[in-house]
Amino acid sequence: MKPSIPQGTRDFSAEVVRKRNYIFNTIRSVFELYGFEPLETPAMENLDTLMGKYGEEGDKLIFKVLNNGLDNPNKKEKTEAGFQQILAGRSDKNITERALRYDLTIPFARYIAMNHGQLTFPFKRYQVQPVWRADRPQRGRYREFYQCDCDIVGSSTLMNELELIQIYNSAFDKLRVDVEIKINNRKILASLAEKCGGADKLTDITIAIDKLDKIGLEKVKEELAARGLDAAQIGTIEKYLSVSGSSEEKIAQVKTLLSGISLAEEGLSELEYLLKHTNLEYGRLHIDFTLARGLNYYTGTIFEVKAKNVTIGSIGGGGRYDDLTGLFGLPGMPGVGISFGVDRIYDVMDELNLFPETLQHATDVLFFNLGEQESMAAFALMQQLRRENIRCEMYHEKAKFDKQFKYADKKRIPFVVIMGEEEVKQNKCNIKNLSKGEQLSFDNHNIKEMINYLRS
Amino acid sequence: MKPSIPQGTRDFSAEVVRKRNYIFNTIRSVFELYGFEPLETPAMENLDTLMGKYGEEGDKLIFKVLNNGLDNPNKKEKTEAGFQQILAGRSDKNITERALRYDLTIPFARYIAMNHGQLTFPFKRYQVQPVWRADRPQRGRYREFYQCDCDIVGSSTLMNELELIQIYNSAFDKLRVDVEIKINNRKILASLAEKCGGADKLTDITIAIDKLDKIGLEKVKEELAARGLDAAQIGTIEKYLSVSGSSEEKIAQVKTLLSGISLAEEGLSELEYLLKHTNLEYGRLHIDFTLARGLNYYTGTIFEVKAKNVTIGSIGGGGRYDDLTGLFGLPGMPGVGISFGVDRIYDVMDELNLFPETLQHATDVLFFNLGEQESMAAFALMQQLRRENIRCEMYHEKAKFDKQFKYADKKRIPFVVIMGEEEVKQNKCNIKNLSKGEQLSFDNHNIKEMINYLRS
Repeated sequence: MKPSIPQGTRDFSAEVVRKRNYIFNTIRSVFELYGFEPLETPAMENLDTLMGKYGEEGDKLIFKVLNNGLDNPNKKEKTEAGFQQILAGRSDKNITERALRYDLTIPFARYIAMNHGQLTFPFKRYQVQPVWRADRPQRGRYREFYQCDCDIVGSSTLMNELELIQIYNSAFDKLRVDVEIKINNRKILASLAEKCGGADKLTDITIAIDKLDKIGLEKVKEELAARGLDAAQIGTIEKYLSVSGSSEEKIAQVKTLLSGISLAEEGLSELEYLLKHTNLEYGRLHIDFTLARGLNYYTGTIFEVKAKNVTIGSIGGGGRYDDLTGLFGLPGMPGVGISFGVDRIYDVMDELNLFPETLQHATDVLFFNLGEQESMAAFALMQQLRRENIRCEMYHEKAKFDKQFKYADKKRIPFVVIMGEEEVKQNKCNIKNLSKGEQLSFDNHNIKEMINYLRS
Repeated sequence: MKPSIPQGTRDFSAEVVRKRNYIFNTIRSVFELYGFEPLETPAMENLDTLMGKYGEEGDKLIFKVLNNGLDNPNKKEKTEAGFQQILAGRSDKNITERALRYDLTIPFARYIAMNHGQLTFPFKRYQVQPVWRADRPQRGRYREFYQCDCDIVGSSTLMNELELIQIYNSAFDKLRVDVEIKINNRKILASLAEKCGGADKLTDITIAIDKLDKIGLEKVKEELAARGLDAAQIGTIEKYLSVSGSSEEKIAQVKTLLSGISLAEEGLSELEYLLKHTNLEYGRLHIDFTLARGLNYYTGTIFEVKAKNVTIGSIGGGGRYDDLTGLFGLPGMPGVGISFGVDRIYDVMDELNLFPETLQHATDVLFFNLGEQESMAAFALMQQLRRENIRCEMYHEKAKFDKQFKYADKKRIPFVVIMGEEEVKQNKCNIKNLSKGEQLSFDNHNIKEMINYLRS
């Protein structure tokens, strides 16, 4: 049998794990600087928890886990009846009652609903875990991928939005990825819908606007027409999408366009507050009135992050929602959160060569194995270096220099330590810096000097 | 709907995540000091990869993932035929072709078989990921739990065993868990089987001996009798299990008992080599001839770690195997590996109070929110502290002192910063150390002094 892995999944080899962890750890450390605490939920949730939360299309993409023991003859009738349900497109508890996490938001909502009595609100959590979706695999889209979210729940003040903008800013600074953070407010989009015939048009309008980047204005107008908006309404939307100038100028234009709608005033003043109180590098934060975000549950500020100098979709997004946990019996729990698109951030950093070079290798020092006696002396020295946090290994058997150098080279190990018979006698070692081609002799008593050299 | 999670799974709240990560990160850092590199494999494997690898009982405990689109009318016949296969206890590709990882060893073997052309051997990898088993949940046994393994593949030298013993020693030292590392060698057990009627008795003997700790000698003898061994054979095994004294004395007794069997001599000299070349604290490494390890694929050295001062099963184990990847078409790949039982290590450390106190809180400093103006001044100071890696947050809205102190208390935040109208005017702040009850005033220009105080 030629082994393989399921379509749309990936093995991550050492260098890729190190690079991914560099991204995860950087973002995690920023979450923690902002007072967020980690949460981990199980990979499997009860099917009930997930079904019906992601729309009809989403439901179809949930990976369901088969119950065990279906060959139990005592349950044969129930199992057969369950199979008929599956054939009819329904899930049945006799066949499947668990499913793989589809995102981190619903498990988080479920967690809050289960534990709200024990939690301190506002509750600030971050979560970095894989999710699974039975999407058709394609370039950049996987069936297993990590999400990386942080949310503040139980608070409606705009200071939370300020903090989240700072988190994006600080995390991408630390990763050295140059970004543009775009914000908008769903209240303004809702007001636009109101002006165009009523609140029921909001979903149609956001879905169409959300495609602006991909399909352009003319196609958006066609889609709006297909969704039943008339020429005057489309005209209003076109005007809205065409506001231009600085953030302040755009705000003034939208104010005029939506004047008299109090929800629009609220949304605009929220945007103004965020503009006023963030103190980011010039040009990093933009108001973008064409920003819509697909998800229906957003009700206030929405965010999106784009990388500069690379053609790729958004690498982050989020927004404010009014009611996270109502579906689980805990109403009136507002919140706001953001998410980092780690796979795309990885691609951006790889393309722009932004990963530190040190992630290329694991072992710092290879000790040559030159025989039984020599290797035991070398082993003792190696243990001393490890105690000083130098990552070491010894070649596993006695072998020619050639072979051992080749091993170091393949693993990109920067230093080798050579202790032959003569060096053992003199209690010395030779350390060779492979990139410089330089070789120096050290006294084995002088660990400090060695370490300085290895760290230089 | 009252939300819940599947039986045998767990949510990990912030403090538990921090404690678990403390264990994971400590062990990971030791793996890296010894030149091991990380690997991550997907949660789902092809069902083919897993089935038949864990024995009949194991197969039943594999969580299988239901294929999507089973309600497709074009596939109805195939799907129905597939359901019949499931009823008969067989898995069918039309119904399920993926399953959740059951351990880390088989995916590792699959990875090597797929990628051996690109890998540098000996290949030293570590892997820390969850696995899933449909076991009956009970105290300390979960359906989702992490494994934490390291293996060296492609090398037969005993230096690898030496390194693994050092890894156990160093990791448990860093975790401050007092342990006993036990070693034995399957070659000796195989020789015992040979002496007791033939190699085919090896499995019966190891299964029975493996239970010695739990059921005692008399029951083991009963089990051996039930498994068809006669009185003389059982007598030999009893003698073997009863060797006593120092490691050296025990070796001498087993040498006599199994004299003339060359495999026994090999195994004993391997144990002697390990004893001679490890330089651990007195009493940490023991030869334990009653150690058997359940798994069938071990062929040489076997390891087990027990925590002292706590009644709990083994917290680590492993061994040498001759052929890891033969099942995947790549024969002759020897290796040796060990595993850390993280859930049990957690329990031991919790019981003995070994976790650092700093893991109890996340945020270091809470900034009080005393109004619009005050909070904006405090926000600016907070950003400066964050830049110095102090984890800060501000109370989300203006509130009474009482309420804000209570929030700090609940989250065990050690310091609060108070900036009222007067302090803002004077560009000062008050920092209160909540555990000491001490409050000091600082100049906002003097960040260094503040940081020294917060870190003291």
